[in-house]
Amino acid sequence: MTKKIPISEIFGPTVQGEGPLIGRPAVFVRTGGCDYRCAWCDTLYAVLPEHSDEWVPMTASDILARVNDLTAGHPILVTLSGGNPALWSLEPLIALGRSQGHHFALETQGSVAAPWFASLDWLVLSPKPPSSGMPMNWDTLDMCVGAAGDRTRSALKIVVFDDGDYEYARSVALRYVGLPIYLQVGNPTPLIAANGEISETASNDHLLERLRWLIGRVTEDYWFDATVLPQLHVLTWGNRRGV
Amino acid sequence: MTKKIPISEIFGPTVQGEGPLIGRPAVFVRTGGCDYRCAWCDTLYAVLPEHSDEWVPMTASDILARVNDLTAGHPILVTLSGGNPALWSLEPLIALGRSQGHHFALETQGSVAAPWFASLDWLVLSPKPPSSGMPMNWDTLDMCVGAAGDRTRSALKIVVFDDGDYEYARSVALRYVGLPIYLQVGNPTPLIAANGEISETASNDHLLERLRWLIGRVTEDYWFDATVLPQLHVLTWGNRRGV
Repeated sequence: MTKKIPISEIFGPTVQGEGPLIGRPAVFVRTGGCDYRCAWCDTLYAVLPEHSDEWVPMTASDILARVNDLTAGHPILVTLSGGNPALWSLEPLIALGRSQGHHFALETQGSVAAPWFASLDWLVLSPKPPSSGMPMNWDTLDMCVGAAGDRTRSALKIVVFDDGDYEYARSVALRYVGLPIYLQVGNPTPLIAANGEISETASNDHLLERLRWLIGRVTEDYWFDATVLPQLHVLTWGNRRGV
Repeated sequence: MTKKIPISEIFGPTVQGEGPLIGRPAVFVRTGGCDYRCAWCDTLYAVLPEHSDEWVPMTASDILARVNDLTAGHPILVTLSGGNPALWSLEPLIALGRSQGHHFALETQGSVAAPWFASLDWLVLSPKPPSSGMPMNWDTLDMCVGAAGDRTRSALKIVVFDDGDYEYARSVALRYVGLPIYLQVGNPTPLIAANGEISETASNDHLLERLRWLIGRVTEDYWFDATVLPQLHVLTWGNRRGV
């Protein structure tokens, strides 16, 4: 029997909108299920159990067939996201995909570590700041950082809505000296979602105003090791799914 | 006698808005003078001889004194831009700056190669596409690529306004297989400048529309080695100088 993974969506090719791989063409594989409930989660459809009937159980080869369908078989960066994709054993998927020339990046909050992180090309850890409402578990984050392999490039990505989040990001950077850290402007649209429906329209004026604020914080503090980025896909397409 | 370099402006710290170092805090050192006259040049004040009386002749230590003043002595990424900064001997500046902990990136069109490129941390080559109106010199670009040193990370950055520019970018990528290539959405504001005065306001709607177009071109062609980015500083601040 081949293990199946609940898949919320597979889409692309588009470009990665955030973090160290910003602007890079990618196909996104989004797993269903999450151990977190962030206040501003923008993918509740991949998080909440009441959506689980929308998730399709797929084997590694099912998933790669779909990826190859989208890319006409051309190797691409496959971004594994969620939900929390670290809840699932993705090693067979990565091994099979690598044998076909694909590269793999994982996006996870750092609450669950797995040995197969070592087979990733990129490990992007996004521990959640205070505004998420989630507690911080430094031990699991330590384990995630330690699970990266020799060929894995690791990075931290922290969503920043406010001063509390910013100070949290500073504390994360202090703990993991030498790991590249990306500060990402928070997208408030999910916080004002009506009836759980996130508006497809984002306010670029607001997002860019917060970007200017965040750049100001970083430069005033001479924090020159940090990289400051918006979510480019939100500026480009709003909160639409599938891009 | 210490050699002086004509400096159009030194500003920052802000974040780099484009290319491989997007989002990275940086101070910009802009030299005056250029061997090109691109149709859509956004820094004519650092290009045209009639502005040369605004350029201040500075020694390497003058320049670094100003950089250190802006960063309170904290090491930072110094982006050398222009005009064409490759017209000047920047080796003493880089050597002195590196001894103070700074890192250096050069932005140049690839029309002039210099041995001191080998001392750079980053060499960002932006050969100009057809829409610039400038002729292509592959020989000098070859020499620039070859001038990078062991510690120099090189990248190509191509401004893309239209299909002609896009095809040109494809040909550049074919010639320099293995060099990372960044496609950058062209900013049309300079083309519609009244009396040489570029409007401080950019049209984000237009820029994002062109970004969606460029992402579409790249993904339809399965060109997954390219990275597609806007000029983040233009989205964030329009065409204002000094940010």
